[in-house]
Amino acid sequence: MDLATLIGLLGVVGVLVGAIFTGEGPASQFVSIPSLLIVFGGTVMATLIKFPLGAVFGGFKVGLRTLLAKSDKPELLISVSVELAAVARKEGLLALDGREMSNPFLEKGVQLLVDGTENDVVSRLLANDIDQMIERHERGESIFRAIGEVAPAMGMIGTLVGLIQMLSNMSDPKSIGPAMAVALLTTLYGAVLANAFALPLADKLAARSNEERMLKNMILESVNCIQSGMNPRIMQELLSAYLPGSKRDLADDSDGKR
Amino acid sequence: MDLATLIGLLGVVGVLVGAIFTGEGPASQFVSIPSLLIVFGGTVMATLIKFPLGAVFGGFKVGLRTLLAKSDKPELLISVSVELAAVARKEGLLALDGREMSNPFLEKGVQLLVDGTENDVVSRLLANDIDQMIERHERGESIFRAIGEVAPAMGMIGTLVGLIQMLSNMSDPKSIGPAMAVALLTTLYGAVLANAFALPLADKLAARSNEERMLKNMILESVNCIQSGMNPRIMQELLSAYLPGSKRDLADDSDGKR
Amino acid sequence: MDLATLIGLLGVVGVLVGAIFTGEGPASQFVSIPSLLIVFGGTVMATLIKFPLGAVFGGFKVGLRTLLAKSDKPELLISVSVELAAVARKEGLLALDGREMSNPFLEKGVQLLVDGTENDVVSRLLANDIDQMIERHERGESIFRAIGEVAPAMGMIGTLVGLIQMLSNMSDPKSIGPAMAVALLTTLYGAVLANAFALPLADKLAARSNEERMLKNMILESVNCIQSGMNPRIMQELLSAYLPGSKRDLADDSDGKR
Amino acid sequence: MDLATLIGLLGVVGVLVGAIFTGEGPASQFVSIPSLLIVFGGTVMATLIKFPLGAVFGGFKVGLRTLLAKSDKPELLISVSVELAAVARKEGLLALDGREMSNPFLEKGVQLLVDGTENDVVSRLLANDIDQMIERHERGESIFRAIGEVAPAMGMIGTLVGLIQMLSNMSDPKSIGPAMAVALLTTLYGAVLANAFALPLADKLAARSNEERMLKNMILESVNCIQSGMNPRIMQELLSAYLPGSKRDLADDSDGKR
Amino acid sequence: MDLATLIGLLGVVGVLVGAIFTGEGPASQFVSIPSLLIVFGGTVMATLIKFPLGAVFGGFKVGLRTLLAKSDKPELLISVSVELAAVARKEGLLALDGREMSNPFLEKGVQLLVDGTENDVVSRLLANDIDQMIERHERGESIFRAIGEVAPAMGMIGTLVGLIQMLSNMSDPKSIGPAMAVALLTTLYGAVLANAFALPLADKLAARSNEERMLKNMILESVNCIQSGMNPRIMQELLSAYLPGSKRDLADDSDGKR
Repeated sequence: MDLATLIGLLGVVGVLVGAIFTGEGPASQFVSIPSLLIVFGGTVMATLIKFPLGAVFGGFKVGLRTLLAKSDKPELLISVSVELAAVARKEGLLALDGREMSNPFLEKGVQLLVDGTENDVVSRLLANDIDQMIERHERGESIFRAIGEVAPAMGMIGTLVGLIQMLSNMSDPKSIGPAMAVALLTTLYGAVLANAFALPLADKLAARSNEERMLKNMILESVNCIQSGMNPRIMQELLSAYLPGSKRDLADDSDGKR
Repeated sequence: MDLATLIGLLGVVGVLVGAIFTGEGPASQFVSIPSLLIVFGGTVMATLIKFPLGAVFGGFKVGLRTLLAKSDKPELLISVSVELAAVARKEGLLALDGREMSNPFLEKGVQLLVDGTENDVVSRLLANDIDQMIERHERGESIFRAIGEVAPAMGMIGTLVGLIQMLSNMSDPKSIGPAMAVALLTTLYGAVLANAFALPLADKLAARSNEERMLKNMILESVNCIQSGMNPRIMQELLSAYLPGSKRDLADDSDGKR
Repeated sequence: MDLATLIGLLGVVGVLVGAIFTGEGPASQFVSIPSLLIVFGGTVMATLIKFPLGAVFGGFKVGLRTLLAKSDKPELLISVSVELAAVARKEGLLALDGREMSNPFLEKGVQLLVDGTENDVVSRLLANDIDQMIERHERGESIFRAIGEVAPAMGMIGTLVGLIQMLSNMSDPKSIGPAMAVALLTTLYGAVLANAFALPLADKLAARSNEERMLKNMILESVNCIQSGMNPRIMQELLSAYLPGSKRDLADDSDGKR
Repeated sequence: MDLATLIGLLGVVGVLVGAIFTGEGPASQFVSIPSLLIVFGGTVMATLIKFPLGAVFGGFKVGLRTLLAKSDKPELLISVSVELAAVARKEGLLALDGREMSNPFLEKGVQLLVDGTENDVVSRLLANDIDQMIERHERGESIFRAIGEVAPAMGMIGTLVGLIQMLSNMSDPKSIGPAMAVALLTTLYGAVLANAFALPLADKLAARSNEERMLKNMILESVNCIQSGMNPRIMQELLSAYLPGSKRDLADDSDGKR
Repeated sequence: MDLATLIGLLGVVGVLVGAIFTGEGPASQFVSIPSLLIVFGGTVMATLIKFPLGAVFGGFKVGLRTLLAKSDKPELLISVSVELAAVARKEGLLALDGREMSNPFLEKGVQLLVDGTENDVVSRLLANDIDQMIERHERGESIFRAIGEVAPAMGMIGTLVGLIQMLSNMSDPKSIGPAMAVALLTTLYGAVLANAFALPLADKLAARSNEERMLKNMILESVNCIQSGMNPRIMQELLSAYLPGSKRDLADDSDGKR
């Protein structure tokens, strides 16, 4: 898990716990097992209706793996690719055979070149891989996003159930306040589950997936460049456009002004 | 119906019934025939305005069939297609004549090849089939989604009607609470109908439709590969991109790192 | 008007009237001329700002005509087109001259073929016709959708006006309830106008427009097939993809499994 | 300003003034200078943050000009273009030199033809013009749409400020009603500014922009037709697809059935 | 920072401070450290979950730089480009070597031309640069937009926490008002943070990014024109379409009617 996710998750919990403990009344008034069951149980069940069983677990697994994975640094990948291109120009594509690479996607692309696979078949194979990776990632993201949509609705349903029970039995005016407090608990649970956990995690998954897509597109372009025997200097220039400004200077000194 | 849908539907009902019975007051206070009529009747009627009569029933039928259908496993389809390609490369396309296949869409594609149909006519026929399947599925999904949009509105309309009746006749303060409880019932019904049933089912339909689309696109690509006499090993590689990570290892050992 | 629209409109009115008459208090408490003026008047005026004057009336006219129109059955159009193709293949395109057809769009396409119009000019003329039809239909739909967006806002504005008047003059506590009831009436009117009439009708228009677009695309494809002298059997197969599952069996026995 | 906009704006004001004067209490209770400052001032300020200073004024200017402008009638433009095409076919493109035209965009296109500009350069120049016009119009529209989004938020902020002030100082129960009335005023102002003025005007701008885009696309197609020396009868047919149904009969008698 | 952003930010603060000080009660009732911690702390933490750590800081940096940067005037760039084209037509592309240009993107493009880089490689390099710039800008914008989405949710969560605490401890009726006032403070903070700062700044970033994209597309087109040796007069005409109406007259007198 990257640092930001960890800090964010701990921080959000800290902010909520702080808010509860600095306020009036015991913290125990914020815990209600039936309310937890309505919001969490209802959300899990509705999510099961929304997706195939395999997709729910698969989505969680893809999600966790994506959150925990470390992605390669683009500037390193560029310098490796440019080096490969230089070797291939001088000694031919076969000279790349058997090279170890840290990135399996780049390795696969280069291996296809070495095998003498046709030009557009290579592009098609790699592009297919990218498309399928995007689809897998989107499935993981959509599970979290679905939770983020269902949880507030379940919170509202729980609050409505509580309000109806309270309104039908208003014999003791003193009990109205606490009963409403309990009814509002499910709305609170739903809002926290959605806005502090599910939706931000879905966004992080989207950001990671985006990063990886950019990286793989860059590798696809590198492989095309290697195959076409492009001038390494041009290739460096071409690929450095994938880098954010600050890193471009490291990889490419000639574009210092930007 | 796949297992997840069944578990989810039963679970959502269980959660709601549990919330009602563990709370104060009799469960009967959550049942009001007029409120049911407003929300369910109003939703059905508005849905009839939204769609042609045939589309409502057709959409429900497509929906049910999609929920109940079992889709083919992609890894099996890949191995069948690769086998067909190997046969066709060795013995010609005619050798595929009369083969039984579990998937009717694959069978149709292969039959077209055997009949000597022209290259792009095959693609056009199959792509047309896919487009029309998507349109049929989307119609089914849109019925459920429409219900999910209309139901909360009908719930709100019912609550407004109840509130106006209550506010105009506030002579007895004791009746205010129960009257408001009844007024809120329609909002509850609308929220449950939309968020626990209609919208999740619409999402499941979309997920199933997506799966089937991917499967048919894979078959369309297989048929193209068979027709062009592609090397079965390359074809295996190409098609295995359609598989989720865990299943790719089963179908294709050479990509173990992913 | 198709049956579903009629049933739906009458049914929605029935549900609302039932809810009002089974509740407490006289039905007259749901009628307030000033509230009607705010919601309906305000909605009409805002709609006039949103669209050119001609578009409002034109949109209503297109809307009504679309709701009332009966569309051709696609399976009949397919058999007619296939027959035309068979004739054209045997006796040449000129043999189609003067044929009466129930569908004016098909007739126009065939007439262009008979006139010897060039291949892509025919496609361009017919595609232009389809684009313009879509644009006209979308204009009709957008009028109803605009009403569905404005009406709840006008209802809220009316309720705010009523609440402010009530809150400023709370000398008599007994009048608070009825005053709030009146204030809520505009919200109710806005919600009913939008969710029970305007938005469902907009959706029906979209569904009808979609149907017609599919039909015209099918005709465009038929005309192309006739012009290219396609084999009628292939053409039948190609066009039958436009049919929903149940009707495909009628038009094309060879695809019984689907 | 077209008639519909004028009627709509006056009508909306009339409806609101009517609602205020027919209700209880003096109309003056709906005027509060501080509330006006919060909603209008806050909206203007947030709009200034959203757009470059020039864009705000430019957008307003484009908006006003678009609202006030009169667009050419498409049926007239078609007959002029067809006439030009007939002349060009008979006497050559140079015969069009120096002709006065009511529409400057058509004149520019024809002038380019007369100058002997190359085929695709003409299309590129005119298409660029259309793209830039769309961008200018969208900027105008987006200013009004931004106001329509910000105003309700500013209204809510104002109401929250008022509620907090009221709730902190509830010593005199009699002042609660009027204080809440004042707090709600900003919500009312925000809702009216957004839903009765800003959003409808943004929609009108979009409709006008759409109309103009269609007109310019038609002219672009006309110029292409003239350049390619198309048969004027075919050209008439082709262009008449741009007309709404009722006007098509005027411009083109052969399509009377539609 | 452009003037509009500065005026807008100061103005929004002024409007809010004015509203607070002209109302009843001390301004101090609008400050609550715990409420500030919930809304600001919670928003920051959720934003950290949403984005990679580098992206949050990078996004802020890009955002600030974009807000503070001054963009080149398009009319100046056009006249410079046309001049370059005239020189290149007369003396060849090499005559452009070593020219200083105020815009580094134009300089880079011209340098590539001088280096004799192939036609489509130049386009690809520059288009890549534009794509990456857009992606960087969108990342900056999305940070602010995420804050604008999370802040109101955190405000609502804070208010729910406060309400539950208040409702559970309603022994002293006098404390209810002030307790609710404090509970509402977080909603107010969230609404102000989102609607008066984060969302408007996100929109300004989008507007600036849009401007810059247009500028760079114009330069890309200029470079293509220079390379193809286009007639400077046509080029001027072509590029002037990028200018807003008022500035087009300055750059191009022949289009005075628009």
